[in-house]
Amino acid sequence: MAAKSRINLNAIMKITGLLMVIEGLFMLSSLGFSAWYDPYCLDHLRLFDPAHDFLPLLVSGSGIGLVGLILWSFNKKLDQNSIGKREGYIIVSLTWVIISFFGAIPFILSGVTTSYTDAFFETMSGFTTTGATIFTDIEALPKGILFWRSMTHWIGGMGIIVLSLAILPILGIGGMQLFVAEVPGLTPDKLHPRITQTAKRLWIIYVALTLVQTILLMLGGMNLFESLCHAFGTMATGGFGTRNDSIAGFSPYIQYVIIIFMYLAGISFTLHYFTIKRQFSKVFRNEELRVYTMLLITATVIIAAALFYTQHLGPGKAFRDALFQVVSIVTTTGFITSDYLLWPFFTWLLLFLLMFTGGCAGSTGGGIKIVRIILLFKNSRMELKRIVHPQALLPVRLNGKSISQQIIFNVLAFFLIYIIIFAFGSLVMSAMGMEFESAVGAVAASLGNIGPGLGTVGPVLNYSTVPMAGKWVLAFLMLLGRLELFTVLILFSASFWKK
Amino acid sequence: MAAKSRINLNAIMKITGLLMVIEGLFMLSSLGFSAWYDPYCLDHLRLFDPAHDFLPLLVSGSGIGLVGLILWSFNKKLDQNSIGKREGYIIVSLTWVIISFFGAIPFILSGVTTSYTDAFFETMSGFTTTGATIFTDIEALPKGILFWRSMTHWIGGMGIIVLSLAILPILGIGGMQLFVAEVPGLTPDKLHPRITQTAKRLWIIYVALTLVQTILLMLGGMNLFESLCHAFGTMATGGFGTRNDSIAGFSPYIQYVIIIFMYLAGISFTLHYFTIKRQFSKVFRNEELRVYTMLLITATVIIAAALFYTQHLGPGKAFRDALFQVVSIVTTTGFITSDYLLWPFFTWLLLFLLMFTGGCAGSTGGGIKIVRIILLFKNSRMELKRIVHPQALLPVRLNGKSISQQIIFNVLAFFLIYIIIFAFGSLVMSAMGMEFESAVGAVAASLGNIGPGLGTVGPVLNYSTVPMAGKWVLAFLMLLGRLELFTVLILFSASFWKK
Repeated sequence: MAAKSRINLNAIMKITGLLMVIEGLFMLSSLGFSAWYDPYCLDHLRLFDPAHDFLPLLVSGSGIGLVGLILWSFNKKLDQNSIGKREGYIIVSLTWVIISFFGAIPFILSGVTTSYTDAFFETMSGFTTTGATIFTDIEALPKGILFWRSMTHWIGGMGIIVLSLAILPILGIGGMQLFVAEVPGLTPDKLHPRITQTAKRLWIIYVALTLVQTILLMLGGMNLFESLCHAFGTMATGGFGTRNDSIAGFSPYIQYVIIIFMYLAGISFTLHYFTIKRQFSKVFRNEELRVYTMLLITATVIIAAALFYTQHLGPGKAFRDALFQVVSIVTTTGFITSDYLLWPFFTWLLLFLLMFTGGCAGSTGGGIKIVRIILLFKNSRMELKRIVHPQALLPVRLNGKSISQQIIFNVLAFFLIYIIIFAFGSLVMSAMGMEFESAVGAVAASLGNIGPGLGTVGPVLNYSTVPMAGKWVLAFLMLLGRLELFTVLILFSASFWKK
Repeated sequence: MAAKSRINLNAIMKITGLLMVIEGLFMLSSLGFSAWYDPYCLDHLRLFDPAHDFLPLLVSGSGIGLVGLILWSFNKKLDQNSIGKREGYIIVSLTWVIISFFGAIPFILSGVTTSYTDAFFETMSGFTTTGATIFTDIEALPKGILFWRSMTHWIGGMGIIVLSLAILPILGIGGMQLFVAEVPGLTPDKLHPRITQTAKRLWIIYVALTLVQTILLMLGGMNLFESLCHAFGTMATGGFGTRNDSIAGFSPYIQYVIIIFMYLAGISFTLHYFTIKRQFSKVFRNEELRVYTMLLITATVIIAAALFYTQHLGPGKAFRDALFQVVSIVTTTGFITSDYLLWPFFTWLLLFLLMFTGGCAGSTGGGIKIVRIILLFKNSRMELKRIVHPQALLPVRLNGKSISQQIIFNVLAFFLIYIIIFAFGSLVMSAMGMEFESAVGAVAASLGNIGPGLGTVGPVLNYSTVPMAGKWVLAFLMLLGRLELFTVLILFSASFWKK
């Protein structure tokens, strides 16, 4: 029992090693497109040359994999019983920091940026599926680097829905308690007693949806490389693309395909699983899905009407622009088809507010999450009733089940902390010289894992002009938002480190 | 028992009558300054002439008083037992609407504005102690009107601390339950078993502080009229003044007097009572007072340093400007000595955030209230501890006492609803064509009962340019904020009107 009160460093090191091996392998998989688009790459095996990325990716991928292998081998075998809740929290937070720390290396070695701050920001933005970029000319980047950049999204999205459900349980960490760490208080219906199995199924759904989208994009005339990059960015609700104007230059068909898959990526993957299992009633009766869909429709209709009447767009274009941007923001993807800062004020204030709702819990979307918003609204209504009838027992109900006070408490605290972090973050960013709109926009977009914000970090601009210290702050906010605040914040609590 | 389930209209009408009589009398008291500054007023007894306000005030005051007297006389004697909690809520909300509805009449009859919307906005802004104005040239207004305008603040401030504790209990409405309606969940230490007595004492403190401030202002060279108006605006944490440049043109002495009394007005009046009763330990041990004071000091030091280094002001001026604006915003007064929108970005973002904290509960200040902020922060820390130790019982403590889950729940719900109203309000205002900063500024300043906001409703501008419908929305937000949200919102809840 005495041993249990110490943090199990052995386990943390071993798991870190495994993560690095996996990251190295993914990185090496970018070599394919690097070679395809640079056929004479073997003649140009050099580092710090932004035109050639074969050697940088090869060195980074194999180096990281090798270090990971050493870490894995030199630590003792994992003992399930010695890995507790605390190790779980540490590993989850550490995972995103470590893979971002190493994932930034190809950007440096290839010379596409000379600033490690920028490289780390871009990688954290990738792995947290935020999609905020510091690159001003994306089309000038070599294809291997671009593919790795999009892949950070895909790995991050996979991480969010699967890491806690599949990889860590395989390593012997009790699954459910870590899943609780990822989505505190919002445990969906227990899917399957054998969580590892289920997680694998979710992973298959994720891969399958990515492949289907890739094929649909290719049918629209996109090449394999761009189709894969955009499918990665979509399914992870990330937002990194391959073009300087994001999705604006693509055909309406392509845009609609991306809309549909952003919508799907913003739905809890447990519902996709139920769909496959033909348990349709569970899907249709799901309150979160209904509110999510209604929210998208309502916001789209309002904005489409505003665009139709004020921007003199045709009804089809107004509808598509509105739908794309609403779905992109609510799902926290951050793809852009139109500069919404040129739209009427209230439409972009509406989009700004939608940056806070986020996707469904258990999806790859960020933000506060629709289910929390539902519980918050329902509890507010109940609170009014409670004032009128102080004696009555009035529980909040979701999907027909009453929700415990404990969970409501947790959701309320989550919302509060989210708003406090947003407020303080904005203050810090503006203290670094960003003006009001840019500061609140950058913080909302980073904390919500969206990407484009307002002002100087708006849809047609990027994060290159953010001060260096500000990039670290925003990267930390991305991490906080991605890991549902508590997972990270708990590490700063003294009681966590005490026995 | 059957009779009790119906709303007691008789009581509501009778109390409305009484309120109108009191309002009429207060209005008539403005005649003194009207006559003093317009000695030949009896030769110019006319309506709709902005230069002469004697007849308009006489007609409005006596008319409102008379209608009130009729309402009072024609309704049956009040039966204590027939006035329940529901009547209490209705009366509290109705009070502010009715006195604003009638209080706007002098503005119309005198012709200083021809828009009833503007007149109502100004009056609601006065009674809710907000201090947002639609007048562009305040110095051009006749003195009687100006005095009535400042008096709406003073009555409103008195209403907030006394109405529920003194006037309504005299009318036979159970005091404490209505006080709970005013400050839900935040009942301070029970002052005295005989609440009516205590309320009268609070009223005496309010009047005494107003008089002391008036004298101190006169010692600084201000005339009686301006001293009274500014004392009214200060003690009510209102913000209406008599000059176009608010307090900027007055001497440092005057500014420091106003700072001190804004600070005092932002403290719970129960603490002033304890001070008079020489129960100093209760005052010094009060957590809300300590946090309130520390918040003011911290924000002042930060902003003063920023002004000193960026605006090239002398240390004395930088400190005074910073202190004045911080105290003015936190207490939700809204007096201005410097255009803070010309200060560095982060200082006015800081001021914007301080618009949400508000003064202490039981003061005349608006906003969320310091004690709620304290409970929210403490609960957030506890929530992190609860995640680490799910089994432990971890109550939030305030002033050494543990706070019930019920109150924490209420405070969390209050914060949530406050933020939701802020967000929706901003959306509505921007839908009316206000740009981002102005919309969020106007809503934060109205809901928090502050007055000056950002952008086009900033410190040196006013609310005259807000669209007509927007003025009604903002007036409603002032009412919501002033009556602590629930009191008004509960009237929109179906369960309130059902048995």
